[in-house]
Amino acid sequence: MVLKNAWYPILWAKDLADEPVARTIDNQPIVFFRGPGGTVGALEDRCCHRAAPLSLGKVVDGVLQCGYHGLRFDPSGTCVGVPFHDRVPPQARVRSYRAVEKHAVVWLWLGDRDTADESRIPDLWWLSDPAWTKTQGYMKLQANYQLLIDNLLDLTHVYYLHASTLGGDAQSATVPSKIELLPDGLCAHRWMIDIVPPPLFARAGGIDGKADRLQASTWRAPSVVYIEICCAKTGTGAPQGDRSQGVTLWASHLIAPETDSSAHYLFSHARNFRHGDEEVTRLLYEGAKAAFLEDAVMLEAQQRNVLDGNISGMLNMAGDAPGVQYRRMFQKMLDAERSPGRLNAPAGVKGT
Amino acid sequence: MVLKNAWYPILWAKDLADEPVARTIDNQPIVFFRGPGGTVGALEDRCCHRAAPLSLGKVVDGVLQCGYHGLRFDPSGTCVGVPFHDRVPPQARVRSYRAVEKHAVVWLWLGDRDTADESRIPDLWWLSDPAWTKTQGYMKLQANYQLLIDNLLDLTHVYYLHASTLGGDAQSATVPSKIELLPDGLCAHRWMIDIVPPPLFARAGGIDGKADRLQASTWRAPSVVYIEICCAKTGTGAPQGDRSQGVTLWASHLIAPETDSSAHYLFSHARNFRHGDEEVTRLLYEGAKAAFLEDAVMLEAQQRNVLDGNISGMLNMAGDAPGVQYRRMFQKMLDAERSPGRLNAPAGVKGT
Amino acid sequence: MVLKNAWYPILWAKDLADEPVARTIDNQPIVFFRGPGGTVGALEDRCCHRAAPLSLGKVVDGVLQCGYHGLRFDPSGTCVGVPFHDRVPPQARVRSYRAVEKHAVVWLWLGDRDTADESRIPDLWWLSDPAWTKTQGYMKLQANYQLLIDNLLDLTHVYYLHASTLGGDAQSATVPSKIELLPDGLCAHRWMIDIVPPPLFARAGGIDGKADRLQASTWRAPSVVYIEICCAKTGTGAPQGDRSQGVTLWASHLIAPETDSSAHYLFSHARNFRHGDEEVTRLLYEGAKAAFLEDAVMLEAQQRNVLDGNISGMLNMAGDAPGVQYRRMFQKMLDAERSPGRLNAPAGVKGT
Repeated sequence: MVLKNAWYPILWAKDLADEPVARTIDNQPIVFFRGPGGTVGALEDRCCHRAAPLSLGKVVDGVLQCGYHGLRFDPSGTCVGVPFHDRVPPQARVRSYRAVEKHAVVWLWLGDRDTADESRIPDLWWLSDPAWTKTQGYMKLQANYQLLIDNLLDLTHVYYLHASTLGGDAQSATVPSKIELLPDGLCAHRWMIDIVPPPLFARAGGIDGKADRLQASTWRAPSVVYIEICCAKTGTGAPQGDRSQGVTLWASHLIAPETDSSAHYLFSHARNFRHGDEEVTRLLYEGAKAAFLEDAVMLEAQQRNVLDGNISGMLNMAGDAPGVQYRRMFQKMLDAERSPGRLNAPAGVKGT
Repeated sequence: MVLKNAWYPILWAKDLADEPVARTIDNQPIVFFRGPGGTVGALEDRCCHRAAPLSLGKVVDGVLQCGYHGLRFDPSGTCVGVPFHDRVPPQARVRSYRAVEKHAVVWLWLGDRDTADESRIPDLWWLSDPAWTKTQGYMKLQANYQLLIDNLLDLTHVYYLHASTLGGDAQSATVPSKIELLPDGLCAHRWMIDIVPPPLFARAGGIDGKADRLQASTWRAPSVVYIEICCAKTGTGAPQGDRSQGVTLWASHLIAPETDSSAHYLFSHARNFRHGDEEVTRLLYEGAKAAFLEDAVMLEAQQRNVLDGNISGMLNMAGDAPGVQYRRMFQKMLDAERSPGRLNAPAGVKGT
Repeated sequence: MVLKNAWYPILWAKDLADEPVARTIDNQPIVFFRGPGGTVGALEDRCCHRAAPLSLGKVVDGVLQCGYHGLRFDPSGTCVGVPFHDRVPPQARVRSYRAVEKHAVVWLWLGDRDTADESRIPDLWWLSDPAWTKTQGYMKLQANYQLLIDNLLDLTHVYYLHASTLGGDAQSATVPSKIELLPDGLCAHRWMIDIVPPPLFARAGGIDGKADRLQASTWRAPSVVYIEICCAKTGTGAPQGDRSQGVTLWASHLIAPETDSSAHYLFSHARNFRHGDEEVTRLLYEGAKAAFLEDAVMLEAQQRNVLDGNISGMLNMAGDAPGVQYRRMFQKMLDAERSPGRLNAPAGVKGT
């Protein structure tokens, strides 16, 4: 179940260079390439001549040339040249998609080109702000993308699935989250006051003793989740807004459905501390990768136990509140997209 | 085609220790674990919360804890704890199966718990009698379990498929078997008189010259086959009941359907001779394994040529009598299970 | 989509020796073996007794013996022996196919044995004429066999797909082909006059300066394509028929459908020059293999983009004329085979 009129994060922009890149998104084979001036082109990965994947071709002056018989396509999908033929038949074209680069990410609009609205891309400013130091990783999961969103919205799994990696102070798990509805998503946030800080934060932030810690998980439709984590010495006023004695980290999880049972997963940690410290960068990257591999094993096994990521009928606990709310809002968006007249809703939905 | 109200051999009991073990049986994912006091628990391998496989969790004090969010289940399938929640919802439970350990094997009753009757487990006493020295092996076959039963009930294949391993005195193959019907199976047996004994038996039993040899293959519904082999010096009265000058071996083949086209296969040789002789143990284990790998190649290729192990319509020869009889009795048991009123039959069927 | 009443090239004759060989052709598992006197037998690869693949057995005196229980079949599919049984049941037989060895190739008639007509095998005399030096290769493609025929009938792909291997003088690609219809196929041919010869030909043929070059691609239904290539010093009369100052090469592409999405591919180059030169032989074999691996990557990717090799609805260019003509003739043959009364056509079709 996928929203069509929505932006999906596909690639780290740095990974789209001279060569075309193939990505299946929502079961559609799509090729991404750099068009004129470095803009992003996205075409059906299937030549209109003999169905060869255009991703096996090459980019020549901002135009994508098929590797089989040499037909050339511009980013609009128009065929602009057929070797050994004087004339290009006017019907020679492939479907094109709107794709843009924003905040160091290549985004794809899955619906009609004309309905694409760039302002609806979530403002992930920390991914492109030079004042933040970032890691960037990629994994493919053999699991439906919604299972990964569920995973990220119920962080109690950290105490079990990630006991040996992320671990965590289980006592803090009992602090309830507040859920705030957004026009196109939701945020579940909580301050844990006067707790033992995670060692990495204690060390990196120079925190001696107890700390106050923010965990704010935001889902932005359809498939972006970011978690803002702040850790500051207890009593220095961070929960009230003064983070000068603390450190902040944005964990970004950018997800796109590949098929009904697989997903692309871009992940990043952006921090505002220890900028030049390669060891902190390495710890954040490798720690995340190790934990996400634990997630992958579980989600892929879970996927084999459910059909197409559908968990309806499963038992919900109190801790599932953000996930349940997410599934509900998402279903409304799907309904609105499929019957726009009846519900008369915008792409986002005000929470109920 | 699988009987539901029946016991299936699943694991060697020694292989179920601290860790939960996942086994798919008749297309159902099931997790086995040691409950309180070392009893055997068997649950649907799918948490009621988010469908995670419980086999990825761990056993804590006889209770199985999900590896994703930490829900805990006792062997009855009741959820006895949800982390960070004071109350366990009463509907939190997973399906449980009856499973018992008997004769060094973990057995599963595939039907309703309440109908399970332990007295129907075949009496494989030689697998737990300390007076017998045993080997224990396991293989998975990409073939329907009934193809393996067919294989074991027509031992003429030994002269062709196992020509280079088990081999055998082809002349002895012409001695016909007598088929005896049992309430829940059948036994095909024959004494081969005054033949050249297989080298292993000659050596192990100290037999000099010709021998009398018993081969008695028993099928016990639904999927246990054991072959009693006795070899004694000719003229010492073994066929008449005096085995004092001979040696006996029980070859056990314990089978369970995994899917419609794959099976679990436990195998064992139990002997009453050369007890401390590791070389005989090794020869029996490795000889069996080599021969069973030959079977695996053939059965898996055969499986690709049939649908779901269905060989109806195939041509039967005289040597197929035990196999044909087995398929016929099994079909009656299936019919009885599916229409109990009409046939009014017990689980076993008196032969016709 | 496969013609039944047609000959398919299956194996290089040299590759069918003492052991039976399994090949799936048009989704039918078939076993090939040497019958009495070295004739070719072809049987359904499935024993009538227990569905074991006969290809796991062995050949004994021109008879194929099943590896499971030892049943023996002659090339007509008749069971001529059942171990441990005095009598062979008359219904013990498997389907047999007509297969013959001709021009160093094993051919299979996929239709009824009785309708097979050997005179319809294309006359590939150069494959068995000792005056020609030959290479012989084999590949399996995960692509429908018709995609490979399309590939061979539009050689403009050489300038793109094989840019780094076969390469070629792109200017020559603009010389149009003439299409000549045959009773059971078509030939697209052209002479390129006064061109730079390919280096291999220049060297092998001792051609100094410009050359005239023939490229004649012939498709013979259902799945043989051969390309005659002649290269001679310009002005020596080769286009008019005097090839005494030139060299000739036959590139043979012998194809058989395995499944709807995979094919067997035999290839050969036969030449009338540099007979003892192992280096030329090696260059031709390895050059072809390298290029065909490039084709394999493209065709297998193309296959994933089409269903069962069906390219109807794709856009045709002028250069596709031979391929379009081939698809049209082939469709008429299919129609004629399926409704013989209505069209009253012979196996071949006179071009329209």
